[in-house]
Amino acid sequence: VTGPVGSTVDGARRAYIALSCLVEPGNRDLGIAVTQDGPVRTLDRLLAGRLPGRLLAAAAPRLRAEHPLRIADAASAEADRLGARLVTPLDKEWPAQLADLVRISFETDRRIDRDTFPPLCLWVRGSWPLADVLQRSVAVVGARAATEYGDHVATELAYGLAERGWTVVSGGAYGIDAAAHRGALAANGTTVAVLACGVDRPYPAGNTNLFERIAETGLLISEWPPGAEPHRHRFLIRNRVIAALTRGTVIVEAAARSGATATLRRATQLRRAAMAVPGPVTSAMSVGTHEWLRRDDTRLVTGWQHVLEEVGAIGTDLAPVPRGPEHAHDRLDAGSAQVLEAVPLRRVASPDDIAANAGLAVPDALRALGVLLAGGYVVQRHGGYTLAPAGPPTRIAPAGERHEAKRSDDTAPG
Amino acid sequence: VTGPVGSTVDGARRAYIALSCLVEPGNRDLGIAVTQDGPVRTLDRLLAGRLPGRLLAAAAPRLRAEHPLRIADAASAEADRLGARLVTPLDKEWPAQLADLVRISFETDRRIDRDTFPPLCLWVRGSWPLADVLQRSVAVVGARAATEYGDHVATELAYGLAERGWTVVSGGAYGIDAAAHRGALAANGTTVAVLACGVDRPYPAGNTNLFERIAETGLLISEWPPGAEPHRHRFLIRNRVIAALTRGTVIVEAAARSGATATLRRATQLRRAAMAVPGPVTSAMSVGTHEWLRRDDTRLVTGWQHVLEEVGAIGTDLAPVPRGPEHAHDRLDAGSAQVLEAVPLRRVASPDDIAANAGLAVPDALRALGVLLAGGYVVQRHGGYTLAPAGPPTRIAPAGERHEAKRSDDTAPG
Repeated sequence: VTGPVGSTVDGARRAYIALSCLVEPGNRDLGIAVTQDGPVRTLDRLLAGRLPGRLLAAAAPRLRAEHPLRIADAASAEADRLGARLVTPLDKEWPAQLADLVRISFETDRRIDRDTFPPLCLWVRGSWPLADVLQRSVAVVGARAATEYGDHVATELAYGLAERGWTVVSGGAYGIDAAAHRGALAANGTTVAVLACGVDRPYPAGNTNLFERIAETGLLISEWPPGAEPHRHRFLIRNRVIAALTRGTVIVEAAARSGATATLRRATQLRRAAMAVPGPVTSAMSVGTHEWLRRDDTRLVTGWQHVLEEVGAIGTDLAPVPRGPEHAHDRLDAGSAQVLEAVPLRRVASPDDIAANAGLAVPDALRALGVLLAGGYVVQRHGGYTLAPAGPPTRIAPAGERHEAKRSDDTAPG
Repeated sequence: VTGPVGSTVDGARRAYIALSCLVEPGNRDLGIAVTQDGPVRTLDRLLAGRLPGRLLAAAAPRLRAEHPLRIADAASAEADRLGARLVTPLDKEWPAQLADLVRISFETDRRIDRDTFPPLCLWVRGSWPLADVLQRSVAVVGARAATEYGDHVATELAYGLAERGWTVVSGGAYGIDAAAHRGALAANGTTVAVLACGVDRPYPAGNTNLFERIAETGLLISEWPPGAEPHRHRFLIRNRVIAALTRGTVIVEAAARSGATATLRRATQLRRAAMAVPGPVTSAMSVGTHEWLRRDDTRLVTGWQHVLEEVGAIGTDLAPVPRGPEHAHDRLDAGSAQVLEAVPLRRVASPDDIAANAGLAVPDALRALGVLLAGGYVVQRHGGYTLAPAGPPTRIAPAGERHEAKRSDDTAPG
């Protein structure tokens, strides 16, 4: 592999991966180039030295050592080795909502918000398709130095959301983040940790057991390749992904002028629901949340019910986030689509339950399930049915096959 | 006194007093009549039986026993006996802002908000002119079953406001109300308790010492004559006065669907600042405050600084509440008016201090002070100057003279 990058889907996918390895995530110059020219032409321009000088300088060290396609292939091999997978905007499981970051990147002040462009590639550990897991998700974030009160509230909030089928997204940090992940896990729900370092060695090490549990039932995500250190500025860059992936962000505790509110600011810019849990005005850990609650765009929430009022109000309540012009359901007859709606995601249901939920007789539901099974919309597990993973196995690369095997062990949450 | 009520100022004043003794405060039928015809014609119509039947029925028992002017004179005598005074809309110290209650009485749903018309007369215990004391005032109210947290926050809030020259108004109840009064007293500030019973026997009796301290340095106010019991419905009627007298209302703690938020609702209707202090979401005593903070019209405040941001923003920051078309200042030359602005209310200042505050040379300030003294705008105390009480002694009735004597003892708060 020494020639030009090529224009096949595979070439474009490798270009995304290579670009993501060459330059720090969110980079404005690269983001503009990719938005205008796509990954393949951008990589060609990079190789030809026809991009802003500081971008060329940033990419130069790695580029001198290796051809971009080799970098991409090495990354894929590394992902395999780690039991992870690489997901790019070309993959079916890519969360389309990340594209909203392009808009705010052009709208916000470039001197303050330099690195707000969407990720070009995500490193993912965990079995379930990214887009499906994040379809109904809420970010619960806050201070590392949380109080007992904050820990309690974050846990309860996440438990309630997870119990109702919502994915709880957080940053894996000590304090509120960890409490949110734990609350979701306690409810046998799904939780996603978006890291500011490689998925091989999630930070902080003190949360290692927690990260393992998240990887088993939910997802560990990072924009950075394995080995990347959790530098301070990476947390701020990472926060835009937490805000963009979810329908809304809740901060539970935050000190004055703290980084814990950065995700909330992004959520506001992205026109996602911005929410905050109040606390005692005597607590330093609630000064930041109260500052935000004094703004008109932040809603006070005291529990999961309030959160659902906010995130359910975006679009048609719990409608799935649109993922593109063509939706799988569009190709189905009304009866099959009705049954498909009744098949649970990440949980196995019996034909009887599905029929009841769809409001159909069991024979009619079984007939529809046959259609859905044949079309690859649903899969059978232990005599029941569950939604098929979003991407075909060939797309999720070798790691995906391992996950496919894992899924048949029925480690599905909930 | 058996003839018609007459049309002198004294007659009108006595009519206000009589009407206030005959019918429960806030009464809609009476309020409409007085708004349209004034107190004298309304009393004439009452005596002639030309008012709505239920209003006649309400007034009948007392009217059968005594002529209205006798009732008024008996009330004045009773006030004297108790060391109180009667203040009507015709008296200079009447707080003009109460007239805003007329507007909301016509705007609000009459089935829910029957009794929202302004008081016709206030029973007042305490030395200072009502309008002056309430010119810069904030209501701090909340739950009787307050937590330690709520008590602490209410005390701090009131202390901070009082220390900065703001009068703290509350309802004299246990819990948040008492904490607010105490905080203001601790700062040597001014506090006003608006009662739902007679000023002779303020309720609850457990706060008797507190009420005595309030009467000494601030004001005890009631719409009800001495002997009136604190019936439950009277608290709700009373709340409109707390909201109307002040530039804004802060609730510190309130249970779900509690009466403690009723004052806040009135403040909103009156377009006063509506504020609430958050608390732990785990506290039942903050459920009501959080409910209100989820509304767009209630501002979260965590301390007096936030409160001043809200109430200072009404009109030109700390501009006095207009009291009528003609203002005392209007008759002064620019220099004297400038010096008058520099003379403190309820505190004595030296000519040097006044000159410095007015930005004038001491001789110029002294010349202006001579004019102001001659015009009755300021009075001399202990070699310094303070603003003259709003109403001339003859207006404040016998009790007023006693207070005048008291004032020369210089018991003025901080």
